[in-house]
Amino acid sequence: MLGVCYYPEHWPESWWEEDARRMRELGLAYVRIGEFAWSRIEPARGAFDWGWLDRAMDVLGRAGLQVVLGTPTSNPPKWLVDQRPEILPVGRDGRRRGFGSRRHYSFLHEAYRQESDRIVEAMARRYGQHGALAGWQTDNEFGNHDTVLSFGDLDLAAFRAWLRTRYQDARALNQAWGNVFWSMEYAGFDEVGLPTLTVTAANPAARLDLQRFASERVVIFNRSQVEIIRAHSPDRFITHNFMGLAHDFDHFALGQDLDFASWDSYPLVFVERFPLGEVERNRWALTSHPDLAAFHHDLYRGIGRGRFWVMEQQPGPANWAPWNPAPLPGMVRLWTWEALAHGAEVVAYFRWRQCPFAQEQMHSGLHLPNGELAPGGAEATRVASELGELSLPVGQRAPVALVFDYEAAWIARIQPHGADFSYTELTFRWYEAVRRLGIDLDIVAAGAPLAGYKAVLVPTLPHVSDAALAAFRDYDGPILFGPRTGSKTRHFQIPDALPPGPLQELLPLKVVQVASLRPGLAIAIGGGQISGQAQRWREWLVTGLPVRASFADGAPALVHAGHRFYLACWPDEHLLAATLRLLLVDHAGLSTVELPPHVRLRRRGDLTFAFNYGPHAWDGPPGADYRLGGPSVAPQDLACWRS
Amino acid sequence: MLGVCYYPEHWPESWWEEDARRMRELGLAYVRIGEFAWSRIEPARGAFDWGWLDRAMDVLGRAGLQVVLGTPTSNPPKWLVDQRPEILPVGRDGRRRGFGSRRHYSFLHEAYRQESDRIVEAMARRYGQHGALAGWQTDNEFGNHDTVLSFGDLDLAAFRAWLRTRYQDARALNQAWGNVFWSMEYAGFDEVGLPTLTVTAANPAARLDLQRFASERVVIFNRSQVEIIRAHSPDRFITHNFMGLAHDFDHFALGQDLDFASWDSYPLVFVERFPLGEVERNRWALTSHPDLAAFHHDLYRGIGRGRFWVMEQQPGPANWAPWNPAPLPGMVRLWTWEALAHGAEVVAYFRWRQCPFAQEQMHSGLHLPNGELAPGGAEATRVASELGELSLPVGQRAPVALVFDYEAAWIARIQPHGADFSYTELTFRWYEAVRRLGIDLDIVAAGAPLAGYKAVLVPTLPHVSDAALAAFRDYDGPILFGPRTGSKTRHFQIPDALPPGPLQELLPLKVVQVASLRPGLAIAIGGGQISGQAQRWREWLVTGLPVRASFADGAPALVHAGHRFYLACWPDEHLLAATLRLLLVDHAGLSTVELPPHVRLRRRGDLTFAFNYGPHAWDGPPGADYRLGGPSVAPQDLACWRS
Amino acid sequence: MLGVCYYPEHWPESWWEEDARRMRELGLAYVRIGEFAWSRIEPARGAFDWGWLDRAMDVLGRAGLQVVLGTPTSNPPKWLVDQRPEILPVGRDGRRRGFGSRRHYSFLHEAYRQESDRIVEAMARRYGQHGALAGWQTDNEFGNHDTVLSFGDLDLAAFRAWLRTRYQDARALNQAWGNVFWSMEYAGFDEVGLPTLTVTAANPAARLDLQRFASERVVIFNRSQVEIIRAHSPDRFITHNFMGLAHDFDHFALGQDLDFASWDSYPLVFVERFPLGEVERNRWALTSHPDLAAFHHDLYRGIGRGRFWVMEQQPGPANWAPWNPAPLPGMVRLWTWEALAHGAEVVAYFRWRQCPFAQEQMHSGLHLPNGELAPGGAEATRVASELGELSLPVGQRAPVALVFDYEAAWIARIQPHGADFSYTELTFRWYEAVRRLGIDLDIVAAGAPLAGYKAVLVPTLPHVSDAALAAFRDYDGPILFGPRTGSKTRHFQIPDALPPGPLQELLPLKVVQVASLRPGLAIAIGGGQISGQAQRWREWLVTGLPVRASFADGAPALVHAGHRFYLACWPDEHLLAATLRLLLVDHAGLSTVELPPHVRLRRRGDLTFAFNYGPHAWDGPPGADYRLGGPSVAPQDLACWRS
Repeated sequence: MLGVCYYPEHWPESWWEEDARRMRELGLAYVRIGEFAWSRIEPARGAFDWGWLDRAMDVLGRAGLQVVLGTPTSNPPKWLVDQRPEILPVGRDGRRRGFGSRRHYSFLHEAYRQESDRIVEAMARRYGQHGALAGWQTDNEFGNHDTVLSFGDLDLAAFRAWLRTRYQDARALNQAWGNVFWSMEYAGFDEVGLPTLTVTAANPAARLDLQRFASERVVIFNRSQVEIIRAHSPDRFITHNFMGLAHDFDHFALGQDLDFASWDSYPLVFVERFPLGEVERNRWALTSHPDLAAFHHDLYRGIGRGRFWVMEQQPGPANWAPWNPAPLPGMVRLWTWEALAHGAEVVAYFRWRQCPFAQEQMHSGLHLPNGELAPGGAEATRVASELGELSLPVGQRAPVALVFDYEAAWIARIQPHGADFSYTELTFRWYEAVRRLGIDLDIVAAGAPLAGYKAVLVPTLPHVSDAALAAFRDYDGPILFGPRTGSKTRHFQIPDALPPGPLQELLPLKVVQVASLRPGLAIAIGGGQISGQAQRWREWLVTGLPVRASFADGAPALVHAGHRFYLACWPDEHLLAATLRLLLVDHAGLSTVELPPHVRLRRRGDLTFAFNYGPHAWDGPPGADYRLGGPSVAPQDLACWRS
Repeated sequence: MLGVCYYPEHWPESWWEEDARRMRELGLAYVRIGEFAWSRIEPARGAFDWGWLDRAMDVLGRAGLQVVLGTPTSNPPKWLVDQRPEILPVGRDGRRRGFGSRRHYSFLHEAYRQESDRIVEAMARRYGQHGALAGWQTDNEFGNHDTVLSFGDLDLAAFRAWLRTRYQDARALNQAWGNVFWSMEYAGFDEVGLPTLTVTAANPAARLDLQRFASERVVIFNRSQVEIIRAHSPDRFITHNFMGLAHDFDHFALGQDLDFASWDSYPLVFVERFPLGEVERNRWALTSHPDLAAFHHDLYRGIGRGRFWVMEQQPGPANWAPWNPAPLPGMVRLWTWEALAHGAEVVAYFRWRQCPFAQEQMHSGLHLPNGELAPGGAEATRVASELGELSLPVGQRAPVALVFDYEAAWIARIQPHGADFSYTELTFRWYEAVRRLGIDLDIVAAGAPLAGYKAVLVPTLPHVSDAALAAFRDYDGPILFGPRTGSKTRHFQIPDALPPGPLQELLPLKVVQVASLRPGLAIAIGGGQISGQAQRWREWLVTGLPVRASFADGAPALVHAGHRFYLACWPDEHLLAATLRLLLVDHAGLSTVELPPHVRLRRRGDLTFAFNYGPHAWDGPPGADYRLGGPSVAPQDLACWRS
Repeated sequence: MLGVCYYPEHWPESWWEEDARRMRELGLAYVRIGEFAWSRIEPARGAFDWGWLDRAMDVLGRAGLQVVLGTPTSNPPKWLVDQRPEILPVGRDGRRRGFGSRRHYSFLHEAYRQESDRIVEAMARRYGQHGALAGWQTDNEFGNHDTVLSFGDLDLAAFRAWLRTRYQDARALNQAWGNVFWSMEYAGFDEVGLPTLTVTAANPAARLDLQRFASERVVIFNRSQVEIIRAHSPDRFITHNFMGLAHDFDHFALGQDLDFASWDSYPLVFVERFPLGEVERNRWALTSHPDLAAFHHDLYRGIGRGRFWVMEQQPGPANWAPWNPAPLPGMVRLWTWEALAHGAEVVAYFRWRQCPFAQEQMHSGLHLPNGELAPGGAEATRVASELGELSLPVGQRAPVALVFDYEAAWIARIQPHGADFSYTELTFRWYEAVRRLGIDLDIVAAGAPLAGYKAVLVPTLPHVSDAALAAFRDYDGPILFGPRTGSKTRHFQIPDALPPGPLQELLPLKVVQVASLRPGLAIAIGGGQISGQAQRWREWLVTGLPVRASFADGAPALVHAGHRFYLACWPDEHLLAATLRLLLVDHAGLSTVELPPHVRLRRRGDLTFAFNYGPHAWDGPPGADYRLGGPSVAPQDLACWRS
């Protein structure tokens, strides 16, 4: 189903009814409103102005639209900031950030949560049972714009309290963080400082605990909204629109409190923001990379425990990337179908009509500022029509699971050891390589049960928790672990028995040396069917395990204990593909298809979708039962057949 | 005529007389002094020491030199800063800048203007009628070193007051800025903040108003000096030495209060500071790009309503660029003649003698620190001698006008939409392309009357004011508008009827989509005589107008309504040249000459000058009446003939 | 001899005895301890806990190890910082730096020195006569992490007091700094500010004086520790471990108070931190550049008046560079022998065992965190064994002296004039070029006696002090001065008679113009045996001296007065080599050998060492008396023969 983001407060009230009518006419079922409207809902403390929102809800409902109501807490209004300036976040530089954009609050202390709860309760009481209300979105894009951490005095006080609860005794803290190093020991929790503005590197264990604390605080902030809403609006769904490429808090943990996950998909912006090189950026500038949106669909389907929406779908040029090109004709339709193929229940476009003022005036909508249909609007109309023809089956478990872990992302960022060791990039490249073989993936949390998967991939997991170890132990299929897995304890220390630490139970080996490699350096790897290069990262293993591939100097690069494999480097494209073929074909018995770089497949029930990002046509199976398109799939087009 | 900048306070008084004598001997008529000497004029509050300056004026006057006296307000002395620290500017980072260099004051509030007025009045009273005094220079290089904006508490208070006057009512402000977006609404002017240190982008309308306010404050600051000087020195000229490449306030507006404009020309430094690529930087490192100084000559002639000086001419290596090479022999002479060819009344070298101490000790002068003639001094001597032989006629209007607008520069900087959309660069490339065809230009303000020009160029003008529209409407010759023209209202909003907004009256078309293109992306354009590529920026037009060139996908790229053309992209060199030939030759009937990249022509009255930046010789017209040089113009040389 | 850095406080006390036994077994003689242990020595003010350190000293001593005890002052503990927060340094941005890493104190005022003296006295009293104590290390890596300067209020007060003492009268200060320029004059010392946060460039003379003041303060801080230690531990040595590539204070001056110098050698990290280009960085990433460590050995031998240790030798991958590769097998041995060949008395590895926690957990040691021998440990074992076989003779003076000057480094950084004019790089390239000819160098301070050297090199020396001039005057051998020598007075002014100022007594010439050249620009130079290119910097000389090489435009590039040469540019590799051959062979009569880029020789007494950084084998003299290796020297190997 399709939806759209709408801001009645941006337009004359006289336009609303016509807008609503045309939404239905275009084929939209859902409309999200309200998430930036606090200054209109409560122009001064306690002086609520519900009238306009009442009328907006009514107009939309009467038109047959289902409303998703956003809590407006991402943007506290000026009067609130002036009354409680301590809610403003403080940057790593110790400087308080100002009012005048969005997300200007700190999660870390209680001051703002009280205000958040107050407005959420008021809204939930008012609209919790409204006939047009389908459900709720909490806040907007938690963590976007680097807003998970804050470095003010109240933030520090809250961190100290959290540490006191966690460690009880400063000696335990000193032990956990290794504070004896460089005389960093604390006599009590009131001595603890924030790990910023230090002369040289701060303690990585302190940084990790701060990130954990902050992540918990985001979850608590959201949970507080969820509990209030559930109390007053018990039979409506609650979701949150996560932001793509943002990993600063644990989305899996927050997702536990939602009915399903949503995410905001800006495929062309991601081309500029994801660590692609310039060559890839130019190649995919007008279509996006074929896996950038897909990766997030699979991730948020996992976070939503099988259910997700795209709450904001880029409908044309955006405005907030360094460059903002227009997608090639067909891409808005393609992206929409791609989301649906990956299991999205709803794809909602951002936004109904381009706003002619303020920060996002250059962001396109389904309509131009003057109300005419924009190119993206025409494509959405086509999707709506196609959706009327095609009944989407329920999705199924993918054959391969990829283990994704937010803590792993934090650890790699805190201590990359090589400047280009990016967790996001490593994980993405493994995902891409599997999809290039035509195979679907699920993305699952570390510690989630793995039974039922034909194969499991762990690109890296520095801290293997007890739960993660148990899941790996219980899984008896083919599994591939990447470098640095098991290299850290919970307290950001090297395990006593060396990496891979607890994983040695399953893979008896020791990592005795590691090296990060600057761009331009690489090490050849060979061994029967496996060949390629190590880049960026290389490890030296001591093990009696069978070796499937070796570095040029003879040291083992890929070893295994039965179905369990360990890869001792960051693999280049060739090495990665060869290793995955070994795992997925030889060990998991999956059949693969070698897709060109611009084509991807995805199954939903008995439907198989093919997406062609271009620039060349691609031939699907000739005699298949096509439901969308046909065997020749043009660039920026798609096909769907029933198997 | 020639002049020089001189700092008697830097040298023993016993040297002054000999310096003055040699200035006259070298052929200099004007000498600028005083603009950095506050600490010597007033060593403590109210304790003026006029003696040395009296004597300096007298010595110079007796030698037959005409003195330009600078007000010393760009550099308040330490005692003043210590007494009134609030005059120090505050950076975007919220941090107050320190004493110890120059331009350390905020324009935005009144505190410093009181001090400025006080010292200016004292100087004007003292020297306003001095026999050696030719005229005044106010302050020095307003806006240099990013000093137009300031972000302190007093600055904010002044901005609020300005907004209150402008908008009367906070609702009007909210409406103008679109503050309903992201709940940025203000209940009153006392809630307004400065658009800095925000979590993500600040409101572009707020930023534009701040820039307008600041620009007005610079004009008011200067006007205050001008009024005081006029009261006490009524029959002397007043000018200001604008800094090249600095666009942070409206130079046209400030120029209205001056008798003529001056500017400071550092052609080699501009090679490092202008957004040229590395290839062009290396090519022009020792000569400057042939249009960098020329562009400014034409700009400041426009700002000075036909009259301008070069107040500081680079005479050899400078010191404040990342690299400071020596100009090739001949270039100081060439630059001087180029200024004169463009209509400069006086070219004054910076400086008489290289200063052996402090920040600019590595900046060359006409003489070495030990008093010997420097290479640039020898070239100046030659120019002085040549000037004695050649009487310079009065200049005339150029055939082509290029519309330049400071507000357009601010808008493009506040919202580039593509990271490399630079107003300075776009405008410069259009200027360069016309000069490559051998045609002279005037640079005029938006809204200035255009009658009499054979053709008019508007590289871009996002906000088309009523005055600008009227000027375009009244002009019936060929005119070319570039992309984004008419794309914003006065309040930084998209016009109701879409871009080009009010220009639709003259050019019935609508821009329905725009795209910025990262480096490496380009779109071919063709159509009869017009071909080339779009780079950086592309628009989609809906129009019934005739199409002269189309994008590769068939959409119109260049359309026209009679003589009025609209170009829907940032053109590459080839597309730009072809478009200009269409306009200037076919429509304006001008005759062109295809100059090599290193040669430029310029007319002054019946004289035509040719300037050869090298590296190859160039042949001028064989039988012409040469007044300088001859038909073979060597690299770094020039020729002048009478037509 | 060999040693190691050890942190008993990082390990269970039960491990100490076994650790000590294995140190001896491996062949180590010295063990450095204590330098980061303040929080364990004094957990709260005045509450000393000596027990553990007593026991550690005893255990190590009983095993036959000699202890080097570090004063722990680089890392004041939290309780001290909380009691006296004014000791924390303040950055150029005016922001106080925080606790939580190291070197978090300001040298510039007295507050911290009092605390430093207190802890040093306590330790010196306790252990000054301990039987295991060989000597002391003061603090750790003075100046590392940009900690020489500080910009707080107390720092400013101390700077003012220093200026008052130095200049007596503000007029003298104004004169020295040229404060008349830009009205920067001060009426008294209480008006002086720190040269930071200015609107544009601060006065270079002020910056130089601040650097001199700070350098003196570092020397005083160290001297204070030295005097206390000498009082209580009179018969033990005192050294300091200088950090490579750190030039922010005068190491020669501080070295005067030490018994010998030590330095910390991280050859692979230096590859990332030294201004090599990307090509060289990739080439030497796994071995280091063959001169990076050697340059420092020769420098610190000079600073130690003939005596030096390597106190920290990189034993494998480090952790604090952008990329941290593993050295190729053999390099740890090679680096160790190279230090010994250059005269090191002791090479101590950092560290005994890799620490599994806190900031440096990824830094390798001789052992893995679990106690197993690491690859570097095996190489150290081999060196220890080889050292048992080979008796190292006393070293001798090298034939060539290179004059190194910390003030020159500050001047070039304060006023590079061309963005890539790096004193470090210029000096290094001259050093490298001599070693490529197979010749050993000493590195000496400006002003040190030069008698006895066959040739002297002065890559640049902007300020030629009276002492330096006297040394040059007294030296009658071949000497080569590089560009900018003599270009500044003591007060950062251009000399009255132009550069090279006082050197004109020895080399009658005048520099009348200089130019910095952006990358990509170069000027050919030729003249008989000398050819090559000028890059980065070029000067114009007026002189009657004989010219040995000229720029392409005919101006003199290399002139000489007898044995004294002046080179008027930054030479490329070819020009530099040709110039040095002229000086060293033709004038100094030295015999040279053209070494490939990856091989270096070094003599110690009658031993000649050859070091092969790879990638190709190198043939030493066939019939020599080899004591290590043989005539075919493999990559990453070395040979040593007796002559």
